[in-house]
Amino acid sequence: MPKRKIAVVITARPSYSRVKTVLSAIQKHPDLELQLVVAASALLDRYGSAVNYIEKDGFSIAAKVFNVLEGENLTAAAKTTGIGILELSTVFDNLKPDIVVTVADRFETMATAIAASYMNIPLAHIQGGEVTGNIDEKVRHAITKLSDYHFVASESAKERVIKLGEDPTMVFNTGCPSIDLASAIINSKTLPFDPYEKYGGVGAKPDLSNGYLVVMQHPVTTEYKDSRKHVEATLEAIYTLGRPTLWFWPNVDAGADGTSTGIRAFREQHQLPNVHFFKNMEGTDFLQLLQHSDCLIGNSSVGIRECAFLGVPVINIGSRQNRRDRGGNSVDVDYSQEQIEAAITASVQKGKANSSSIYGKGKAGMQIAELLADLPLQFHKTIMY
Amino acid sequence: MPKRKIAVVITARPSYSRVKTVLSAIQKHPDLELQLVVAASALLDRYGSAVNYIEKDGFSIAAKVFNVLEGENLTAAAKTTGIGILELSTVFDNLKPDIVVTVADRFETMATAIAASYMNIPLAHIQGGEVTGNIDEKVRHAITKLSDYHFVASESAKERVIKLGEDPTMVFNTGCPSIDLASAIINSKTLPFDPYEKYGGVGAKPDLSNGYLVVMQHPVTTEYKDSRKHVEATLEAIYTLGRPTLWFWPNVDAGADGTSTGIRAFREQHQLPNVHFFKNMEGTDFLQLLQHSDCLIGNSSVGIRECAFLGVPVINIGSRQNRRDRGGNSVDVDYSQEQIEAAITASVQKGKANSSSIYGKGKAGMQIAELLADLPLQFHKTIMY
Amino acid sequence: MPKRKIAVVITARPSYSRVKTVLSAIQKHPDLELQLVVAASALLDRYGSAVNYIEKDGFSIAAKVFNVLEGENLTAAAKTTGIGILELSTVFDNLKPDIVVTVADRFETMATAIAASYMNIPLAHIQGGEVTGNIDEKVRHAITKLSDYHFVASESAKERVIKLGEDPTMVFNTGCPSIDLASAIINSKTLPFDPYEKYGGVGAKPDLSNGYLVVMQHPVTTEYKDSRKHVEATLEAIYTLGRPTLWFWPNVDAGADGTSTGIRAFREQHQLPNVHFFKNMEGTDFLQLLQHSDCLIGNSSVGIRECAFLGVPVINIGSRQNRRDRGGNSVDVDYSQEQIEAAITASVQKGKANSSSIYGKGKAGMQIAELLADLPLQFHKTIMY
Amino acid sequence: MPKRKIAVVITARPSYSRVKTVLSAIQKHPDLELQLVVAASALLDRYGSAVNYIEKDGFSIAAKVFNVLEGENLTAAAKTTGIGILELSTVFDNLKPDIVVTVADRFETMATAIAASYMNIPLAHIQGGEVTGNIDEKVRHAITKLSDYHFVASESAKERVIKLGEDPTMVFNTGCPSIDLASAIINSKTLPFDPYEKYGGVGAKPDLSNGYLVVMQHPVTTEYKDSRKHVEATLEAIYTLGRPTLWFWPNVDAGADGTSTGIRAFREQHQLPNVHFFKNMEGTDFLQLLQHSDCLIGNSSVGIRECAFLGVPVINIGSRQNRRDRGGNSVDVDYSQEQIEAAITASVQKGKANSSSIYGKGKAGMQIAELLADLPLQFHKTIMY
Repeated sequence: MPKRKIAVVITARPSYSRVKTVLSAIQKHPDLELQLVVAASALLDRYGSAVNYIEKDGFSIAAKVFNVLEGENLTAAAKTTGIGILELSTVFDNLKPDIVVTVADRFETMATAIAASYMNIPLAHIQGGEVTGNIDEKVRHAITKLSDYHFVASESAKERVIKLGEDPTMVFNTGCPSIDLASAIINSKTLPFDPYEKYGGVGAKPDLSNGYLVVMQHPVTTEYKDSRKHVEATLEAIYTLGRPTLWFWPNVDAGADGTSTGIRAFREQHQLPNVHFFKNMEGTDFLQLLQHSDCLIGNSSVGIRECAFLGVPVINIGSRQNRRDRGGNSVDVDYSQEQIEAAITASVQKGKANSSSIYGKGKAGMQIAELLADLPLQFHKTIMY
Repeated sequence: MPKRKIAVVITARPSYSRVKTVLSAIQKHPDLELQLVVAASALLDRYGSAVNYIEKDGFSIAAKVFNVLEGENLTAAAKTTGIGILELSTVFDNLKPDIVVTVADRFETMATAIAASYMNIPLAHIQGGEVTGNIDEKVRHAITKLSDYHFVASESAKERVIKLGEDPTMVFNTGCPSIDLASAIINSKTLPFDPYEKYGGVGAKPDLSNGYLVVMQHPVTTEYKDSRKHVEATLEAIYTLGRPTLWFWPNVDAGADGTSTGIRAFREQHQLPNVHFFKNMEGTDFLQLLQHSDCLIGNSSVGIRECAFLGVPVINIGSRQNRRDRGGNSVDVDYSQEQIEAAITASVQKGKANSSSIYGKGKAGMQIAELLADLPLQFHKTIMY
Repeated sequence: MPKRKIAVVITARPSYSRVKTVLSAIQKHPDLELQLVVAASALLDRYGSAVNYIEKDGFSIAAKVFNVLEGENLTAAAKTTGIGILELSTVFDNLKPDIVVTVADRFETMATAIAASYMNIPLAHIQGGEVTGNIDEKVRHAITKLSDYHFVASESAKERVIKLGEDPTMVFNTGCPSIDLASAIINSKTLPFDPYEKYGGVGAKPDLSNGYLVVMQHPVTTEYKDSRKHVEATLEAIYTLGRPTLWFWPNVDAGADGTSTGIRAFREQHQLPNVHFFKNMEGTDFLQLLQHSDCLIGNSSVGIRECAFLGVPVINIGSRQNRRDRGGNSVDVDYSQEQIEAAITASVQKGKANSSSIYGKGKAGMQIAELLADLPLQFHKTIMY
Repeated sequence: MPKRKIAVVITARPSYSRVKTVLSAIQKHPDLELQLVVAASALLDRYGSAVNYIEKDGFSIAAKVFNVLEGENLTAAAKTTGIGILELSTVFDNLKPDIVVTVADRFETMATAIAASYMNIPLAHIQGGEVTGNIDEKVRHAITKLSDYHFVASESAKERVIKLGEDPTMVFNTGCPSIDLASAIINSKTLPFDPYEKYGGVGAKPDLSNGYLVVMQHPVTTEYKDSRKHVEATLEAIYTLGRPTLWFWPNVDAGADGTSTGIRAFREQHQLPNVHFFKNMEGTDFLQLLQHSDCLIGNSSVGIRECAFLGVPVINIGSRQNRRDRGGNSVDVDYSQEQIEAAITASVQKGKANSSSIYGKGKAGMQIAELLADLPLQFHKTIMY
């Protein structure tokens, strides 16, 4: 019997980190052939060139698709998606996958979902059913309605997908594959690499041996005009506290300009003797960095997800992770310098949190590969009510 | 206060017929400005050039968008949608509507929904919540998840949209605007025009004074490889019965080639002395034609919807209208010559059915315009569970 | 040394016929690897599905690109080209060819030329330097200005390309590869296949044993509103003469609707007991059919080119082949029923013309493959004056 | 008689500066209506948001088109052009211009040329016939072959366009409209504004009262992998000389990343106490700035063109302006720190050059508007040999 061809479309650095163990498990599975498609910001230097890590990790790429329209506004997000559909249709037409896999809820993943579902290719969705309260949520649930198989990350996500009218026999709580990686690094005693040397970046190089903060703050799609003001509150807090801090630039998104411009302007106006800025970091290294940090500040889903498993304290800012399932490691604050400062200080005093398996136990990649090999091929469905 | 700008995107002839009363009501409303966008097959000769009727009906067109990719396969459907997003984004960026309205569930309406929702323009969806059991259903419910306001056509549709997690205060059972037109013509005593003279077409010109059949059969997206065989069963039945018959060519859809090719080949091989073929007909005329017919055969939603209100008997073939709410006027049959023949014969004997208001009472256009003028402008939502 | 990768983009049935011997010669050449890209109307059923012949002829296809935008108007021609660029860029980015080859002057071949030249891939153009006096000519000479190597079909074409400022050392008169095929079939004594049986088609099946006419008439881009009227003159002439006639449907082009509609309407209104209609025919078979015909009527370049070599008389109608080099086999007439009838009658009486090698001697394919293997790879040029 | 509708497509900041007097003259002409389309990098913050200047200057915009594909590589340049065609076709289809005007030779202007010429809209090209020896030249001459009217900037350009086979009666040496602006400012005695205050920017604020240098260096398309190294030679020279310097960031182009990255990295590693960086400047102000400067360094066409008229000395670096007509104001050097330093020093000693009218006398805008009003509307042409 020929192997099932599984096309996975990766459109951004964080998505790659998230599903890396799924890609490995597909590649190793005797009945599956991986067709890896790399697209959108995953190809772009400005957003960390995930493609370089993908190649370094030994995955071979079946097709690359440049489809990010410049503008960093909402019109550009829509157009990027349109171009994505146009081109991914051609890619799927030429690769002829048996199943297409799309990941999470970034706006451009809709392109994968539409191309596959319109072409009657069974579509698997990783991480449906979660709630966050911004545009991502429209996208996420719309993709659920276009998908045939659902590999969700928590029990509450599973319930929600079923409530959306999906066939319960096609909804699987595999946990989040990002936890697989966290699970693999959980026992490292000290940071096994020098981040300045390995990843370059700009700014000061504070001593990390007595603890450090990590910041990762993305613009929020529905609030993108305020993204500069939002990041300034965090910048002021970090500046005032003066603790060693490692700051990661935001992903591409409508409004990245606001966040990035805010950071650049702040740097022009202030000396930041304790802050170093990174463009990106390989997933495992980033998790190691988090594990040894005092806490993570910002609005990344890593805080809610991997950090819950790792027991790393998180100061979660603003609305981006609203309504997401939480472990016991996180505190929610507003876009407020005072709240952010207070929360960081409290968190550093309190120290590590307990590990939570709310987003899985570290076997998601293997489970998903098994399901992709065994599930009946189908692309025809109807709502269950 | 400036008028609210309401962009309505029409992508196909049947969609135009369906929402014509909505367009009129928006145009007449003192607080609304209509921005009519005509796109996709609504611009194409092969599919009946809805654009000509739109202009004849006195609507002025704010923008035209050619986006149908040729191929009449599923790849082309996906690409048509991608191009649609790319171009409608530009159109919306230039027109700056306050609300965008999208209609029903044709594959390319997804382009309207994505462009609007990604650009943070409040999106209204007409005819969400229905079920049919084919690709349209994936599209329809995904559009529901992208939409902010829902103008549904029946109580069961309203319940379903709410179950999908939408805010009940934003779901309105206005009935289907197509019923507005049916309501306006219900009292005509005889067919008030000569269809051969007014609409041309090809084939025989049977005498219509002692009753006639109307056929409208579209290819079904998920079964498109069989569309030729499917239409042949109907052709054989009509050929055998020999009754006066008016047959309408199918819309553009993946597989139109199968249906159209089937019809063309059958015509080459058989004399059809009682069958006339039309490419298209203005909405009101078509309803008049139905009202005076013996019955409608095929899989058009007109049979389920307008014919329920008009009390016209319908032989509904195959899966396209599966699970849609029915009035008492329709009988379901397979793609089987025998079943189709038997059902037609029985139906002609039985005569007219009772009128049903399951899809509304004829005030949908006005109600929708009122709602568009009064609803709070919003594009931010979260799932209700 | 790795083989040079030569990407050839085929966008239409006639282009495939024209360069088939080039493809074979590339495939056989020890230092070359063929990357065949099939796009645009070459993939579409309505235009003869060249792709099926390509596969039947044993060429393997590296990528398929559906990019024909429906509309059959000039807007659609522009958009088809835009989509072509967008997608061919991705294809070239993934295939990484050393040289790209584009053929002739159809509007959508500009997409190949722009994608390749903008990506700094050396571009070879087959059939530059010819003149015809319509939009094709704008396209053809613009492609010359984007190309690095020129494989032209006649001495006058060579002179013209050099006058356009191209480096004379990069301009090669290889003759037209279509003549290679004509050269191979020139000795067949009788038609070695039954065209009705092998190619189906519709209409009457006149006896071909006492001679027959062949008609192939395309719409002219710059006159597309008149294409229906133009084809009607030919239809009337053929109808009046009543000779056995084999008629080929036109290619996709802005205005195909006019020509096709004209033919369809004429067939509805007239009995044509001596005319058979074909959608398409494999290149060699078509040449055989021409070789045994009384004459070719229409505006196809085959009349000017292959028929010159074969000595088949040609009635060339209208402006489409204006200013093209002629052998002694053709007569030019207007879109006039009378002129067409008179020319056909005269031609049938006169019989075969002499063979001319104005478009080559039948070795173009091999010569072009040799050049592709040997030419220095370069994409940087400047005008020679 | 209705006014002729003239659509001018502006795709970049420098193009806007160049044709501003043409836009004004069209707007003022009693027989013309200006339809201004703003697209590509002219809309983007990263490239100086020409759109803001356009609006500030009082031009109303008929349509905006975001079409820059991110990637800043050659694939992205091709795709940007493809998207441009797709969308400009729709824009032209809706605006229905009588003539389309395209400017110069940036890669994406090909989109304007193809959309207009394919749609049978008469196309006017400003600045054809020049030579530069890089990809721009392929683009420029290809656009000439697609254009119907040619408004060239010098006698040598006129001769070249005619040699390309264009009808001499359609080729007009109007001079370059950029000279119109230079002509208007030539008598200012001192810099009439404070550039730091008016345009912000980053870096030091050297005293400008004793002379200053201006730098504007763009990446060269055909050498884009070397653009970082190329800009570093200039940076080292400026750094070593230590003179007051005003540096302008490059435009969007394949390779902008190399140039921009080079500048950013140099700034991180060096103190530059005499260098200020601007993102952009309104055209007239920029010309004033040049007029009062010691010299311009880099590869901008402003050096060859406006500076020739203004008599401002220019150090022209590398191949970007190869083979362009020169006045007596410029010196050519390699990408060499030593050569650049020496040339600057010599130039500062020598002082102002004589004014040259090789690129016109300052009446181009008015002349072009007159021609657009008077020329016969035509889109059909054939090569003259």
